Amino acid sequence: MNQKKISSAVIHRLPKYYRHLGELVDSGIQRISSRDLSIRMRITASQIRHDLNQFGGFGQQGYGYNVGSLYKEIEKILGLGEKHNMVVIGAGNLGKALAHYQDFKARGFNIEGIFDNNEKIIGEKVSGLTVKSIDELPEFVREHHIEIGTIAIPKTEAKKMAKVLVDNGVRQIWNFAHTDLHMGDGVVVENVNLTESLMRLSFMAALDKKQ
Amino acid sequence: MNQKKISSAVIHRLPKYYRHLGELVDSGIQRISSRDLSIRMRITASQIRHDLNQFGGFGQQGYGYNVGSLYKEIEKILGLGEKHNMVVIGAGNLGKALAHYQDFKARGFNIEGIFDNNEKIIGEKVSGLTVKSIDELPEFVREHHIEIGTIAIPKTEAKKMAKVLVDNGVRQIWNFAHTDLHMGDGVVVENVNLTESLMRLSFMAALDKKQ
Repeated sequence: MNQKKISSAVIHRLPKYYRHLGELVDSGIQRISSRDLSIRMRITASQIRHDLNQFGGFGQQGYGYNVGSLYKEIEKILGLGEKHNMVVIGAGNLGKALAHYQDFKARGFNIEGIFDNNEKIIGEKVSGLTVKSIDELPEFVREHHIEIGTIAIPKTEAKKMAKVLVDNGVRQIWNFAHTDLHMGDGVVVENVNLTESLMRLSFMAALDKKQ
Repeated sequence: MNQKKISSAVIHRLPKYYRHLGELVDSGIQRISSRDLSIRMRITASQIRHDLNQFGGFGQQGYGYNVGSLYKEIEKILGLGEKHNMVVIGAGNLGKALAHYQDFKARGFNIEGIFDNNEKIIGEKVSGLTVKSIDELPEFVREHHIEIGTIAIPKTEAKKMAKVLVDNGVRQIWNFAHTDLHMGDGVVVENVNLTESLMRLSFMAALDKKQ
């Protein structure tokens, strides 16, 4: 498979396949046609075939997809078979919310540490972790083999903290600050911009009204 | 302009134009070439021209874009000129984090109320608001002309609460539960799935390693 060719739209849909297949596994369903999967996921059957063909194609004519094995395959493609160590920078409400997410751990994403620069917050307990000072971050990241750094602080400090993470070996940045981070080659960044998400909602509603 | 034709990729980029132009306005820059805007935003100049042409085209040959007027136009397109009343369902860490976001208010998104069904949380103060019981939601939504309902509760209750919102006149759902909500015609939904976002990061990193 040519990994270079995978579009961002497919990257966007893969976790959705994984979620829907996981729900099917949980309900004891063993196989599904691309048509039924299409109705469930609200995308066309030809889109599904096209997406999954990029990873080798898992369907069989007249049989459909084997739910369990497709689920396992996508899990592997998404890199979810292994454990991933994370830290959260910022123990404000958002950082706390992220640290409490049970779902991440279930997927192999372990939050190993949470950091803040506010003396009033350092030492607090969050979901079984003690909030540490940002001064301890570089050593912690190296010692705990942290793969993913979550940025849950205002944009003024975001770039600086991302650099500290990258300088200490982190290659994945999950950024919630209201600025796009670009960390150069070898570092992947997923920017989650909540204000922009809200604006998209507002824009779609404005379009919808005019139609 | 034909509003039907606007792709989800353009919808995705519009808030980014708005953010970058806002930063240019703040720095006192009055005009910018599509080439300079392209470098700043890390998308191609032809992409920028193509995107903005869908809204009538704002550039002038040899001049570039007037930053201030383009900013104002995109603000209008995004429906940001007016105030939008919101409620947040769920006063856990995520709901609290959203209620504290100063940036939303600056863009005209006013959080008017926050609701929970947990007796221990009802009555707490969050960013100047008192957490109300979910029982008060239907009347509150009608009386305060709420446009946007934010779902910050587990997926088991998400659909039910979204229906209460829609039944009482809400036409925009901002959903953070780990399930895609589809509320039918006339209701727009923006699904923000944090677990899927984290999976995308993990997948991009796995791809990056193989290259």
